Amino acid sequence: MIPPPQVSVADFAAALTAFARIVGDQWVFTTEADLDLYRDSYSIMWGEADERTASAAVAPDTAEQVVDLVKVANRYRIPIYPISTGKNLGYGGAAPALAGSVVLDLKRMNRIVEIDERNGYAVVEPGVSYFDLYNHIQAKGLKLWIDCPSPGWGSVMGNALDGGVGVTMAPYRNHFEAQCGLEVVLPDGRMMRTGMGAMPGAKTWQQFKPGFGPRIDGLFKQSNYGVVTKMGIWLMPAPDAHATGVVTVPRHRDIIPLIDIIGRLEQAKIVQGLWNLSSPITGTPGNAAHEAGPPAPPSPTIMAILNDPSGADMARLETVGTAMGLPFWACEFNLYGPQKLIAAQWECMCDAMAAIPGAQFRLNPIQTLPLPVETQRATRDLGPFGIPTLKTFDLGPMHEFDGEDVVGHVFFSPVIPRTGEAAIAAMAAFAGIARKYNIPGPPLPVPSSIFERAFLFAIGLPVTRSPLVNAKIRGIFRELVAIATANGWGEYRTAPAFYDMIMDTYSYNDHALRDFLGTIKDAVDPNGIMSPGRYAIWPRHLRDHKT
Amino acid sequence: MIPPPQVSVADFAAALTAFARIVGDQWVFTTEADLDLYRDSYSIMWGEADERTASAAVAPDTAEQVVDLVKVANRYRIPIYPISTGKNLGYGGAAPALAGSVVLDLKRMNRIVEIDERNGYAVVEPGVSYFDLYNHIQAKGLKLWIDCPSPGWGSVMGNALDGGVGVTMAPYRNHFEAQCGLEVVLPDGRMMRTGMGAMPGAKTWQQFKPGFGPRIDGLFKQSNYGVVTKMGIWLMPAPDAHATGVVTVPRHRDIIPLIDIIGRLEQAKIVQGLWNLSSPITGTPGNAAHEAGPPAPPSPTIMAILNDPSGADMARLETVGTAMGLPFWACEFNLYGPQKLIAAQWECMCDAMAAIPGAQFRLNPIQTLPLPVETQRATRDLGPFGIPTLKTFDLGPMHEFDGEDVVGHVFFSPVIPRTGEAAIAAMAAFAGIARKYNIPGPPLPVPSSIFERAFLFAIGLPVTRSPLVNAKIRGIFRELVAIATANGWGEYRTAPAFYDMIMDTYSYNDHALRDFLGTIKDAVDPNGIMSPGRYAIWPRHLRDHKT
Repeated sequence: MIPPPQVSVADFAAALTAFARIVGDQWVFTTEADLDLYRDSYSIMWGEADERTASAAVAPDTAEQVVDLVKVANRYRIPIYPISTGKNLGYGGAAPALAGSVVLDLKRMNRIVEIDERNGYAVVEPGVSYFDLYNHIQAKGLKLWIDCPSPGWGSVMGNALDGGVGVTMAPYRNHFEAQCGLEVVLPDGRMMRTGMGAMPGAKTWQQFKPGFGPRIDGLFKQSNYGVVTKMGIWLMPAPDAHATGVVTVPRHRDIIPLIDIIGRLEQAKIVQGLWNLSSPITGTPGNAAHEAGPPAPPSPTIMAILNDPSGADMARLETVGTAMGLPFWACEFNLYGPQKLIAAQWECMCDAMAAIPGAQFRLNPIQTLPLPVETQRATRDLGPFGIPTLKTFDLGPMHEFDGEDVVGHVFFSPVIPRTGEAAIAAMAAFAGIARKYNIPGPPLPVPSSIFERAFLFAIGLPVTRSPLVNAKIRGIFRELVAIATANGWGEYRTAPAFYDMIMDTYSYNDHALRDFLGTIKDAVDPNGIMSPGRYAIWPRHLRDHKT
Repeated sequence: MIPPPQVSVADFAAALTAFARIVGDQWVFTTEADLDLYRDSYSIMWGEADERTASAAVAPDTAEQVVDLVKVANRYRIPIYPISTGKNLGYGGAAPALAGSVVLDLKRMNRIVEIDERNGYAVVEPGVSYFDLYNHIQAKGLKLWIDCPSPGWGSVMGNALDGGVGVTMAPYRNHFEAQCGLEVVLPDGRMMRTGMGAMPGAKTWQQFKPGFGPRIDGLFKQSNYGVVTKMGIWLMPAPDAHATGVVTVPRHRDIIPLIDIIGRLEQAKIVQGLWNLSSPITGTPGNAAHEAGPPAPPSPTIMAILNDPSGADMARLETVGTAMGLPFWACEFNLYGPQKLIAAQWECMCDAMAAIPGAQFRLNPIQTLPLPVETQRATRDLGPFGIPTLKTFDLGPMHEFDGEDVVGHVFFSPVIPRTGEAAIAAMAAFAGIARKYNIPGPPLPVPSSIFERAFLFAIGLPVTRSPLVNAKIRGIFRELVAIATANGWGEYRTAPAFYDMIMDTYSYNDHALRDFLGTIKDAVDPNGIMSPGRYAIWPRHLRDHKT
C-alpha cells in the first residue's frame, strides 16, 4: 500500500479506517485488483512511472457521507479525486489527476432525485448514467428527451461538469449550458447550494440559472473546488417528428459562404439541430444519423492527391472530384418539430443557401416520433434521437499504429473560429500532421459544429500499450498543440497527462488566469485535498510538483 | 471633504492626488455639485444619514488607467465603486454600495472595440450605451440587432453584469447569457482575460464561452471581484420580418394549461420571441409592441371586485367579465424570421394551444423589416425591434403616494415558477399588498416571461423625497420579501439598500453561499477595496459594518 504524496503510512491507514467507518468496509478499496478498475484504460502513460494511479478508492452512498469523507480527508491531508461513473474515456477515465490520490467513486449515488415534465428538468446525483435517465423517462412515459454523448454509459453530471457535449438541439447539447443549480460539498466539508437553491425551500432551483449575486456554477466545471452531489439539468420536450436534410456545394472554397450562411441561420435560431459537415470528394464522413452510410472511400487518384507529402492540392481535388460528379462538401442537418415547422425551416435554409452557385438540396422523409423499435434497430446512430447506446464500440477492431495495437484514443480538441477560412486552415494543418505521422483516421479531418459559434476538432490520437509508441504520441500531441496555439486556437478539454501543457497555453498577462484560479483554490481548499492538479489547478503545497 | 470609512484625511488626499496624476485633474471630482450627479436619484434613502453617497469620483479613459487607479486604491485602502453609465435606475443608479466610496466612473471608456457581422458579436467597453451600439451598427449598415432594455441610455456591459434583460429573442434577451469573454482588472490591479481570451492571440474569445478549466465569467455578475473593462456580447442577425400573434383564453384557471403549453413550446424553441401576458378583464396591460393600446380600464363593477379588502374573487371576476365578452387572459407573442417561418411557428402554436376550450387566435399582419421610419415613429414600444429609445419617460407624470410626489421607483423582483398555479398565488399575494397600502400600479400585477423557465415580477415601488414615506416603502418591501421567501420565491436583483436583506434570504446551511462568496472576496481582494458591500459581499474588515 503506497500512501498519497506527502502523507505518512500511519496517517493513510488512519484515514482509510475512518473512511470505512463512514461507508462500511466493503466500500473502501485498496487491493491491486480493485484499484486496477480505476486505471484509465486509455492512459497515454500506461505502465509508466508517471501513470496516474489511485492509492485507494472509497464509494459513498449519500451526500452526507461525502461530507464526512471530505472532513476526514482534511484531517489527514489525503488528496481525494471524485469521479462519477468514471467513463470519461479519451479524457482521463476514472484515474486521478495526481498519482496516489484516493478516488471518491460516486457511482453508488445514482438517484434521479426529481424529474419534472412540465418544466422540463431532472435533478440527478453523480452516478446517474444516460441509460439510467433514459430508462427512467421511458418507464414513467414522460414526453422528455435526454441529450447524450456516444456512448451512453457515462454520467449525466460528470459529462456536464467536464464540459461534454451531445448531438440534439443546440441549447441542450452543450451539457454544461443545460445545467441549472448545483449542490456541492466544498473542500472543507461544508454543503452549499448554488443559484436559487441557496434559498431554503426554493421553488425555482432548477428553473433560474443566474441566482442572486455572482453566478458560481461555472466554478465547478473542469475544476477542483468541490464535490457536486446534485445537479439540475434542462431536458427538451420529445419532438413530434425528425428529418434530415442534405445540402451539397460543389467547390472547395464554397465552404466560406456556406459556413457564413449556416452561422447566420444558427444565430437566428432557424438551424437548431446539429449539422454535420462531410466531404464526398475526400471520403470524409460526417456523423449522419440517417444517411445510408459513410461516403465511398476515395479513388486512388484522390488518395494520391490527399497523401501528397507537400500537402493536398485542393484545386486538383476539386477538379478530379467534379469530373467524378462529386460535390466537395455536404452538410447534413437534423430538423426537429411538428412536420410543418420542419418543412418551413428547411425552406428557409434552402432559400438562404441557394445563394451558393451549384448548391443542391434534399430533404429526406419526415419521420414521426417516437421511432418504431424496428427503425431504431436499423438506425446507425441513435444519438440525434436522444437514445443512449454503446454502438460506438461496434465499429470493429481499432487500427494499428507503428506496429502496435491501438487500445484507445486520447483527444486533441481545439476550438477554432466558425469561418470557412479557419476551417480550411485547420484542416490543412491537422491533415499535415496526420500525414506526417501516418495517424489512422479520415483523410481530411472535418470540424464539428457542436458548439454554437465555434468549430471543434476532436481528433482521437491512438493509444497503445507500448511506452515507446505512447511517448511518440505525446510528442505528436505537443506538436499539434503548438500549431494550434500559434494560430490562436485553444483546447476546450484534455486528458490529465496534458492538463498543465494546455493550461500553459492560456498564458495571457503572465498566466493571470491560472494564478487567479490558484488564489481561489488556496482560499476554498486550504489543505489542498480536493482533486489536486485537476485541469492544472494545484494547491499551494503542490504547485511546484506539477507533472 | 469626507474621506471613506477607515481612511484618514491625509491618505484620502494623497490618493486623490495620485488619481489625478493618472487621469488628469479634470477627471477627479470632489465638489458637492459634481458628486450630486453620482447620487441615486431613485434612492429609497434619499437625504437620510444612510444614503449611499460618494466621497469622490474618478473617470479613467483606458483599461491601463484602471489598473493604475486600482493600485493606488490598494495603497491607500480606498474603497472604489466602478459604474459604467450609471443608469441602473430602480436598482441603485450611480451611487456606491458603501457610503464614502470613490466612484470609478467608466463612462469615458466607450469604445466599440470590435464588431463582427459574420459571427454576430461585439466587444464593448463599459461606457458603450445601447444608443452607441445601435448607432454604430446603423452607421456601418450591419445586419445585426441589439437587444436593449427600456430605456436605451444604459450600458450594454453594465446591464449584462447586473443581470439585466431585454425583450427580443430568448437567447439574446437575458444579457448575461449573451455575454462571451471578459477582460477584467482584478482587485489587486492585475489584468486578466477569461475564457479563450486567456490565450495570447486567441481567435475565439467571443465565440466560445466555456474556455478551458472553470468558467469564471459568472463571478463578475452582481459582484465585486474586479472591474470589467471589455466584454464580448452575442448579437442576433437582423430578422427579415416580425409579427405579433394574440391568443386569448376565457377562464381564470385556463392560465394553468396555457402556461404549460407555452412552456413546452419555449423548451422546444418554437416560441422564441418574448410573449406578454395581460388580463383584458382586469385591465392589466402586457408590454405589447403593436397592440393598439392597453386594455380598456376595468368597469366599476370589476374595480369593486378587484378592490375587495378580503381579496379579489376570481370566479366572480370571470363571470362578470365573460358577460361583458372579455376573455380573462391574453398573450401577445412576438415572432421573428422569414415570413414562412413566422407563419409555420404560429400554426404550431395555435395547434398546441387549441387544446384549451374557447381559445381564440389572431395573427397580426407580418411586417417586413427594417421598419420604415414612419412606422417606427408610430410604434408604441420599439424594444421588440431592437431599437433603443427613451420613450419610457414619456409616460407622463408619475403618481402620488401617501400625498407625496413619486420621483422614481425601486424594484421588488422575485422569480417564481413557470406554472399557472404559482402565477395565481403570486398575483394574489402581491395584489393583496398593493391593495393594503394603495400602491399605484395595475390592478392585477402579471408576471413577465422574460426568463426562459421562470416567471419574473418586477414591481416598481414608489420612491419619494420624504424620508417618512420612503421608510414606509422600505417596510412594504420587507413585507413583500417575507411573503416571497415564505413561498420559496427568491429575488434576482435588488437595489443597494436591500442587498443584505435579500442575501439573507439565501441562507441554506447557515449561509454557506454567502460565506463562500466572502472567502473568495478575501482571497482576491485582500484589502477589500473593490465595491465593498456590492450584492452583500463584504470584505473581512467591513463584514460587521453591514448596513
